[in-house]
Formats: sequence, C-alpha cells, structure tokens
Amino acid sequence: MTSDHSLSRRGFMLVLSSPSGAGKTTVARHILEREKKISLSISATTRPQRPLETHGIDYHFVSPETFSKMVEEDHFLEHAVVFDHHYGTPKSFVEAHLADGQDILFDIDWQGTQTLKQKAPTDVVSIFLLPPSLEVLETRLRNRAQDHEETVLLRMSQAASELSHWGEYDYVLINNDLEVAVESVLSIIRSERLKRQRQEGLPLFVRGLHA
Amino acid sequence: MTSDHSLSRRGFMLVLSSPSGAGKTTVARHILEREKKISLSISATTRPQRPLETHGIDYHFVSPETFSKMVEEDHFLEHAVVFDHHYGTPKSFVEAHLADGQDILFDIDWQGTQTLKQKAPTDVVSIFLLPPSLEVLETRLRNRAQDHEETVLLRMSQAASELSHWGEYDYVLINNDLEVAVESVLSIIRSERLKRQRQEGLPLFVRGLHA
Repeated sequence: MTSDHSLSRRGFMLVLSSPSGAGKTTVARHILEREKKISLSISATTRPQRPLETHGIDYHFVSPETFSKMVEEDHFLEHAVVFDHHYGTPKSFVEAHLADGQDILFDIDWQGTQTLKQKAPTDVVSIFLLPPSLEVLETRLRNRAQDHEETVLLRMSQAASELSHWGEYDYVLINNDLEVAVESVLSIIRSERLKRQRQEGLPLFVRGLHA
Repeated sequence: MTSDHSLSRRGFMLVLSSPSGAGKTTVARHILEREKKISLSISATTRPQRPLETHGIDYHFVSPETFSKMVEEDHFLEHAVVFDHHYGTPKSFVEAHLADGQDILFDIDWQGTQTLKQKAPTDVVSIFLLPPSLEVLETRLRNRAQDHEETVLLRMSQAASELSHWGEYDYVLINNDLEVAVESVLSIIRSERLKRQRQEGLPLFVRGLHA
C-alpha cells in the first residue's frame, strides 16, 4: 500500500512535540520502524549521554565549547536550551534531505518548532501529542528509571507550560493508545506527501500528458 | 484502526475533481463504502436520470423551473452548468452536516470547487485526480456504454482545459491504480480530521487536563 509514483517531490520536516512523558519518543520510534522513507533528525547536544544512547544515532554528543563554535559559524537551523542543556539541528543535514525528497522526523519542543516554522514555513508539518490525562503523564515520568525524583517534579511543573503550546501545531493527537497514535501519524505523513506544493514534478507530468 | 476520540469536531467538505474519465466517481464510490463517517453531497440537477441512478441518492432530479426557483431563493452553496445541465449543492444539507462533525464528499468540477473555496475556505479539502495518460482517459470514456461518440469527443476536448486546473487543489493524485488512489484519499481524510482547527473540543479538553 503505497501512494508513490515516480514524480520528484520535496521532503518535509515532521515535527512531533509533547510535554515530557506524553509519548513522543515512543511514537517517533514506531514511525521510524514502520515508515522507511523518513529518517530522524540527529541533533547535536551538550547533554550527557544516557546508558542506552549511541553517539551519531541518538545524538551527536558535543562539548559546550564545540556547540558554541557551531552556533557562531551558523551551522544550526535551530538551537535551544532545554533543562540546562543545548540542542541544535544541523542545517546541512536538513537541506540535503529535503531537496532529495526525503522526510525528516524531529522530536523537538515548542521552541525548536517555532524556529523551524519561522525559517521554513512550507517545509514544516507539526504534530502535538497530548496526554490523555496529567496522571498518565506523571506515571510515565516516574517509570523512567534514569530520572531522579527532582527531575520528575521539575518536568511535571514544566508540563503545564509546555501544554499551552498545542495551539501552534498543524495537527493535534490525544495519545490514548499507542497503535492509534502511530497510525494517525502515518496517515499524516502519507497525506502530506500528496500535497500539491510538495510534488515538484507535477508541472512536467501534466505537460507530458498533452505531448 | 481509528483515530477517533470523543472530542467535538467540525466536519469538512472533501472535493474530488478530475477530467471526465479519470476515475473520480469510482474512487468516490469506494471511499463511501470503506469510510462510513463521510457521506456524499447530493446535488440537485436538471440533467436526465440515467438507467442505474436513483432519485434522492445519486441526485435530486429537478425540472429547470424548479432549479431556477432554488437559485432565486438562494438555496445553493454553489451551482454551475456542465454540459448544458445545471447542478447545485443545497446549503442546508452542508451546514447541518459540518456543524455535526460529519464530512461530506463532493464529486464536482473545478468551477464548483472554486465557489466552495470562496465561500468556505477553511471547510474545503480539495483533491485533484490526474489520469496516468490521455489514452487511459479516452479508453475509459469509450467504455461508458451510455455515452455517445459525440459526447466522448466533446469530453476529450474538454479534458485538456479541465486538466489545467490541477494547480488550484490542495492534494494531487495520479490515478494509476484504484486501490492506491483509494488508500491515498483515506489517508487524507484521516489526517484532515486531526487538523487542530477542526477539533473544536480541544480547548475544553486541555482545560480539563489541568482541572
């Protein structure tokens, strides 16, 4: 079941945002497993590497000094500070993928989304995941073994302000059920690929019809 | 596999357009069979009833006099003349469905689409179906037993000008394969339902999260 044809197409940046614990990272992982033509944007970050993370796959883990130099040399499409750590999206990676008709998935917060939309409004498709309840959010945060109690409390207090940004997104999903959420995101990906403006090969195709 | 939740939602008008013979009526029929929450807009028309058509299901077949009266009394959201016959979309039907969160499928041409978009820009989702080639188009038109040779020739000559309107649509599909086309339209329907602006119940839901 594919909607592919051979027309050339411009890729898009699919942004998934949610308060911590609302499931965006889990949904993103499932999307990447089931939809081979979208790849994850790999951010550079100054935050410490976690046990199960791999450098160059999950993030590019860089020193604060390296990060500052990359900012100075304008290597980032967007960069922001979250929980005292720096995160940035390398420009070159994004530009090359979009021009080649490949889509890129971003697991970023509302600050990064705002910057991306400001810089490339027609290339961004944004989705906000809402938790079904704040209780579910807290349970998910507490189940993360590597987060300390104070991190849980800090994130819960931030959830309320993160939630307030749902109104800036193109699509809003309530993450009641992982499978439904994943299917919904897959539908959004498939339909966004069919948007007239992304199908750069259409004028040539229609001209060919008359030939 | 559904993306439903209990939030109230405003319906949308899904417009399917294509040159005659590019398959829009067949695709529309499959969508209506597989997606129960969308119903066909039933137009009033002055064109003669065909053998397999049912009054009140396919069209409301009305006399030219009745049609004129409905135009005068402003009963139509849009109306147009196609191949010497009048077609019109009754306002009351559309308004009631959209407010109730039900989607309506329109099998109309670019003229009707332009009018709908002009009158209700945020409620219209438009899809243009392109034939894979003009040869396929002609074959399909010739296979319609009830169309006379002169009708086929007239429609072929009109296909070129109808094709020129693909650039006015939100989504463009090449109808190479019926199943792919139907799946593509279903993805568009599912994702459009998740657009933030259609989910009128969201502000209340988010307020409830904090309660």
